[in-house]
Amino acid sequence: MNVSMNVEEYMVELGRRARAAASAIVRASGAQRSEALAAIASALTADREVIAAANARDLAAGESAGLDAPLLDRLRLDDAAIERMIEGLAQVNRLPDPIGVITDLAYRPTGIQVGRMRVPLGVIGIIYESRPNVTVDAAALCLKAGNATILRGGSEAIESNRAIAASVRRGLTHSGFDENAVQLVTTTDRAAVGHLVRMSEYVDVIVPRGGKGLIERISAEARVPVIKHLDGNCHVYVDAAADARMAVDIVVNAKCQRYGVCNALETLLVHADRAAEILPAVDARLAAAGVEVRGCERTRDIIARAVAATEADWFEEYLGPILAVKVVSDIDAAIAHINHYGSAHTDAIITDDYGRARKFLAEVDSSSVMVNASTRFADGFEYGLGAEIGISTDKLHARGPVGLEGLTSLKYVVLGNGQIRP
Amino acid sequence: MNVSMNVEEYMVELGRRARAAASAIVRASGAQRSEALAAIASALTADREVIAAANARDLAAGESAGLDAPLLDRLRLDDAAIERMIEGLAQVNRLPDPIGVITDLAYRPTGIQVGRMRVPLGVIGIIYESRPNVTVDAAALCLKAGNATILRGGSEAIESNRAIAASVRRGLTHSGFDENAVQLVTTTDRAAVGHLVRMSEYVDVIVPRGGKGLIERISAEARVPVIKHLDGNCHVYVDAAADARMAVDIVVNAKCQRYGVCNALETLLVHADRAAEILPAVDARLAAAGVEVRGCERTRDIIARAVAATEADWFEEYLGPILAVKVVSDIDAAIAHINHYGSAHTDAIITDDYGRARKFLAEVDSSSVMVNASTRFADGFEYGLGAEIGISTDKLHARGPVGLEGLTSLKYVVLGNGQIRP
Repeated sequence: MNVSMNVEEYMVELGRRARAAASAIVRASGAQRSEALAAIASALTADREVIAAANARDLAAGESAGLDAPLLDRLRLDDAAIERMIEGLAQVNRLPDPIGVITDLAYRPTGIQVGRMRVPLGVIGIIYESRPNVTVDAAALCLKAGNATILRGGSEAIESNRAIAASVRRGLTHSGFDENAVQLVTTTDRAAVGHLVRMSEYVDVIVPRGGKGLIERISAEARVPVIKHLDGNCHVYVDAAADARMAVDIVVNAKCQRYGVCNALETLLVHADRAAEILPAVDARLAAAGVEVRGCERTRDIIARAVAATEADWFEEYLGPILAVKVVSDIDAAIAHINHYGSAHTDAIITDDYGRARKFLAEVDSSSVMVNASTRFADGFEYGLGAEIGISTDKLHARGPVGLEGLTSLKYVVLGNGQIRP
Repeated sequence: MNVSMNVEEYMVELGRRARAAASAIVRASGAQRSEALAAIASALTADREVIAAANARDLAAGESAGLDAPLLDRLRLDDAAIERMIEGLAQVNRLPDPIGVITDLAYRPTGIQVGRMRVPLGVIGIIYESRPNVTVDAAALCLKAGNATILRGGSEAIESNRAIAASVRRGLTHSGFDENAVQLVTTTDRAAVGHLVRMSEYVDVIVPRGGKGLIERISAEARVPVIKHLDGNCHVYVDAAADARMAVDIVVNAKCQRYGVCNALETLLVHADRAAEILPAVDARLAAAGVEVRGCERTRDIIARAVAATEADWFEEYLGPILAVKVVSDIDAAIAHINHYGSAHTDAIITDDYGRARKFLAEVDSSSVMVNASTRFADGFEYGLGAEIGISTDKLHARGPVGLEGLTSLKYVVLGNGQIRP
């Protein structure tokens, strides 16, 4: 029997078990799902030593294999990280149960009542890289929303993930649930991912968590819908009517508060009338923070140290201490720039003009559009979703930060008392 | 230059124009979109003769080509059909404008206000078969929801579609809109469809309208999300606590009121305790209507004329005067049957038992789940959506009858007064 056949059979078996577990979850009440999450927290607490030991083995193997420091850092589960993981699970469990909620139930002229019920998606595949805490975070959020999960973590975290998954499954069993509500892909064979994203019979949606390369590969191969974003090329547009101090504070916060995140600022657009005033003030703070500026011609007339931006810079998500800056003639030029070069992630206008705030909100085609706030607020916790599984820049189903609701669907319910169609 | 290159270039050009037109629609108000729909209605009214003449050419060509009678019937646009098309457009125009509605706008502890705004999807590709009235119906619904459309009708209706599209575009121009908000693919080259469903840069969603073969082909090729259903294998489960008269009336209505529709009944499930009472009563009416019965063994013990159902019958969407019938031991067996063999379209329980009604609603994983009503009610008009572009059995984005809302998306809006992230 060849190896790739084995991997396919293994994945199909995981899929079958997940589908069966998902049906069982639908029959459980919200209180029972909540008990399961509590039992998982207890199991993780009891297994702290085992998880730490498994993580130590991953770290040792990673060091031998020459993994770089940031990767080892993401891999590391110290006491505080394990504590945060368990606390995160408790936080998810405190969120209101989304499942079974019926909205808009109203009578129709025929006498039938029609409404929509929120229901689980079914089986969710999570594909992620080094951080082993995702194993708990994702499983908890999916279970709270009534779904079964198939988790595929990075090979460098396999020992940690196995230990965590074993605890999670013990918690499930302990609370009377099918342990296959959460399954870890234990083979590190890369073919497993290819099967996972194409098994539309067994998997309802894929959520990839990781770098752009991973997500592009998955999107290209997938036959199952993918909740994702590729880039976070976020913009701030400083309008003619902007408050100067607010503009500078928000630009600096959005660019510098954290560089490697998807909601960080990458391109600053400034109205021509305000460029001579705003840009030097912004630049003083960016220079102090060690941020490189790549500007259009008009920007370079004002910021002498700026290097010339190329066409590629307007598309670029730097994820680092670099900012692209362009002077624009009006709000229409700003919106056109954002809709053309942006990645539909998060874009903000700084203005005290009511009409232009309204226009920007309506016309910028991004998953989050802001007025007078830092792009760094684009986040499930900041938006009040309680937690997030990721951020979507696609237009269908889930858009923007994705919390419990994005892991559910709506079905129509019809209540009659014998109606037939005339 | 080879022909397939030409088709690709032609489709990309259509895509570019549609994208530009979609941006322009976003800048228009709801009142302006409404005026455009009114202008389209006027143009169609003025062009009735031209449209009828074009339709006559299609019918003549169809007859020469030996198209069968049902197909010619779907193709025919008589005065009444043109009238209905124009009236349908006016109905769509009377629906409330969904665009720009902001919901759940609430303050967060940081002082930002976070809400969600309903926005157009952008560009919608409609692929349909013979009925030329879809050209107006689909374009009107998409435009009301703020979208541009690319329409690809069947080659047998090309003359009718060209005439209708010309009127629609004249109406758009007349009301100051970009006529490319509605474009018809005028080549009958089949390669055009392949390009349309893969141009994810220019097309946001595909809605196929037609037979299962068409939809399977499109789904297999598409790189753009598809709003669709493949089958309507609908069930009625007659519970132990069903009212007998209601059960018989609903079963007969769901099966016989119209055979060739996706929400018609295909498999009847009856609780064992009620089979001897219900099945003869149902069969008397089915036999009178000329409906064939394919039953399980227990069914055949009761309905002598029933032929033996095979495994394939439980999966089958007959779309005709045939009904599969199975006797089941309890509601769990009924739900398991529906979730396994069904197509997640529309399934109903007939019961006077509160607990089992509640259980059926929660556990049947279909886009419409009903209690004591005919499956024939699964329809956008009956649900109060005003109109429908189709029915989706997928779980993501739109599920069940798809009206204006399914042609839109939600984006997050954030209103601050200078907040930065600590």
